[in-house]
Amino acid sequence: MPSPSPISGFPEWLPAERIAEQQVLDALREVFELHGFASIQTRAVEPLDQLLRKGETSKEVYTLRRLQAETDEGEDLSSTLGLHFDLTVPFARYVLENAGKLQFPFRRYQIQPAWRGERPQEGRYREFVQADIDVVDKDELSFQYEVEIAQVMADAFARLPFAPVRMQVNNRKLIEGYYRGIGANDVAEVMRIVDKLDKIGPAGVEKTLVADLGLSDEQARACLALADISGEDAGVADRVTALGVSHPLLDEGLDELVRVLDSTALMRSDTFTVVADLAIARGLDYYTGTVYETRMLGFEHLGSICSGGRYDALASDGRTTYPGVGISLGVTRALGPLFSRGLLTASRSTPTCVLVALPAEEARGACASVAAALRSSGVATEVAPTAAKYGKQIRFAQRRGIPFVWFPQDDGTHQVRDIRSGEQVEADPAAWVPPADDLRPTIIATVAVSD
Amino acid sequence: MPSPSPISGFPEWLPAERIAEQQVLDALREVFELHGFASIQTRAVEPLDQLLRKGETSKEVYTLRRLQAETDEGEDLSSTLGLHFDLTVPFARYVLENAGKLQFPFRRYQIQPAWRGERPQEGRYREFVQADIDVVDKDELSFQYEVEIAQVMADAFARLPFAPVRMQVNNRKLIEGYYRGIGANDVAEVMRIVDKLDKIGPAGVEKTLVADLGLSDEQARACLALADISGEDAGVADRVTALGVSHPLLDEGLDELVRVLDSTALMRSDTFTVVADLAIARGLDYYTGTVYETRMLGFEHLGSICSGGRYDALASDGRTTYPGVGISLGVTRALGPLFSRGLLTASRSTPTCVLVALPAEEARGACASVAAALRSSGVATEVAPTAAKYGKQIRFAQRRGIPFVWFPQDDGTHQVRDIRSGEQVEADPAAWVPPADDLRPTIIATVAVSD
Repeated sequence: MPSPSPISGFPEWLPAERIAEQQVLDALREVFELHGFASIQTRAVEPLDQLLRKGETSKEVYTLRRLQAETDEGEDLSSTLGLHFDLTVPFARYVLENAGKLQFPFRRYQIQPAWRGERPQEGRYREFVQADIDVVDKDELSFQYEVEIAQVMADAFARLPFAPVRMQVNNRKLIEGYYRGIGANDVAEVMRIVDKLDKIGPAGVEKTLVADLGLSDEQARACLALADISGEDAGVADRVTALGVSHPLLDEGLDELVRVLDSTALMRSDTFTVVADLAIARGLDYYTGTVYETRMLGFEHLGSICSGGRYDALASDGRTTYPGVGISLGVTRALGPLFSRGLLTASRSTPTCVLVALPAEEARGACASVAAALRSSGVATEVAPTAAKYGKQIRFAQRRGIPFVWFPQDDGTHQVRDIRSGEQVEADPAAWVPPADDLRPTIIATVAVSD
Repeated sequence: MPSPSPISGFPEWLPAERIAEQQVLDALREVFELHGFASIQTRAVEPLDQLLRKGETSKEVYTLRRLQAETDEGEDLSSTLGLHFDLTVPFARYVLENAGKLQFPFRRYQIQPAWRGERPQEGRYREFVQADIDVVDKDELSFQYEVEIAQVMADAFARLPFAPVRMQVNNRKLIEGYYRGIGANDVAEVMRIVDKLDKIGPAGVEKTLVADLGLSDEQARACLALADISGEDAGVADRVTALGVSHPLLDEGLDELVRVLDSTALMRSDTFTVVADLAIARGLDYYTGTVYETRMLGFEHLGSICSGGRYDALASDGRTTYPGVGISLGVTRALGPLFSRGLLTASRSTPTCVLVALPAEEARGACASVAAALRSSGVATEVAPTAAKYGKQIRFAQRRGIPFVWFPQDDGTHQVRDIRSGEQVEADPAAWVPPADDLRPTIIATVAVSD
């Protein structure tokens, strides 16, 4: 076959990039598990009627069809399968399906690809890996988990080789209470219009609120005044209070927002900040408490790379309702631009730390024993493919970034050379280990790394 | 929504099963990386014309369609996308696409789901995880890698909580040389018929060889005589030689087969054996040297759970040909039946090792600090969700299999209780670590485990 071309929107990584991605996924897994989140994976497909329940993503779903299916097969939505476009819909279904076998509150993480037939652009792909955490409970869910989700992600970002990130939080109760307090009772519509601030500007939002929803100029300006508030501490609450609006939901939301800020105050650093941003609402209807968005500084054009919130009804089977709170990190969305700009890679393109040089084909058995001994110390090792001249074997290692070449000696002793420095020392295959930094490939990040 | 039902052929695991699966995947990754295999992942989709190149799997491919696609979109095979049905076709395409950026010989592993629209049965799924290793080179590939693939899988099986496995190896050169030596020159057809031994028996095979291919009775019986040979050592070669057939390819294949047996002799154990089985041919046309199949004892009805072989032309762009050798472990195929029969699970359904009891809601900050200290020692820790009575908090831990509950004391000291034994001791959050066996969930296997 002729040399194939990439398919737009379906990114693939070279081995060194994949190593960097693996280390990101490893760090996420470690942080999530340290916080007691259990891994689940769901099938790639859901019945199409489930995927379309929210109504708004119908354009983006990939449906499946068996090539040799009967022509009348898969005509109705419940028997047609589609690839999931996020990990929330499958998780909600998994919770309902397995409710009797899960312990609630149930905290899970899920790292898997999702698919959307969107027009590809930087940071937006048709196939992309998401890393989600959620806590879900039966009937009631403690507010405490809204704090915890932010803390877990703070721990995670401290380990990730991303550009510095800013987490923006807001609270749906606060917004709803405020809008109701000023008499703008079509809360969902006001939110939808204020959410366009970035696109149409304050004047556009004010005009639309008046024209489309019949708000007074004063009400419209009050909506903008709220959206204009942001800050890192309880001063935010003072500024909201100064707007002079009163509603019980507003007070409750404001209190929750301040608790999220306070509880993450000590986790902030040069590369991770949390701010209350009262313009953030999240497009989706189902959020009912804290909402989160996260932007990488210098990469704001990607939009939020880590978003989520509290939802009072993640799922319901008619008898029991399952409230939850969760957040979803767009792993591919964040990594793709870092890779394509050459800002992130790994120190070598192979896990191999040692190449055992092959003095002669007859020595292969002995060389394999050296390799086995090194592996049993946890050192990734290959034997050279052929008994070529040592110069050629060393170049084999150099091209891959393998740091050490092992030379069995005629007298039965062994020497190992660091081919970067040229330093060569005697070594025992059963005892030698490399410096910790060389054992595995390390991440090379040109962006500011917080760890 | 009403309680959803599973979709046949798309298995999902409960959290404890998923932990067992993760540990299997971790062990595979560790072994593969210790042997210098680099991870890659390929997109889930390939152009349909690429998926259908082999011709024989057309019935099984799932094709994709965007729900809102134009009606005339995706009519031709090269623009229609299908889900990959194995990891070999995508890997071959990846090698061609990135040949200029890879170092050859290139050794990669790939652990991902694949999809086939087959009728589901035990061990055969529509969505299933495969773990593949391959070594691919340019123009020529050393035989040595055919040995190495068997050795890597021997190392892997020594770490897996499977039932005991038997790897069966054969060699295509041996088979081809033998058939040519007896004058049965339609080698592919003879192989195809001999491959039906399990289904139609020796008499059926003999009859078909005569009727369909026009072989003499003597030739047909000679084919059966070869297929009847199996054994663990060079004695196999003596038995083949005793059949009195002579052909250079036969000699070459026999020599290679014995080298694979010899080089894995020391890696055999109660739970992993390697045998030459001269009835094994692998259905696929493209194998040209060593072929591998692997069966779990007591689960022979699943067929081979780990198969592969040498192929002289994994891929070609017209100028360069890429020979390779690889093997593919059916992770879901092996684990699904072990899970559904209750033979494999994890010691707990959560990574959490310690639950920090909450004496009162006001103590949450202090409890969170204890949890953070334990996490920084690598101990997965949760804080109890509510300040319920301690008995209730302990039951919260018990239901999840969390082994330890941590009790902050009024005087600022701390105690930790092993809730299995009831033993409670004073402990320092900055220094305490659990016994190594309790740090993470462990695998509980009722099948014989080799490690």
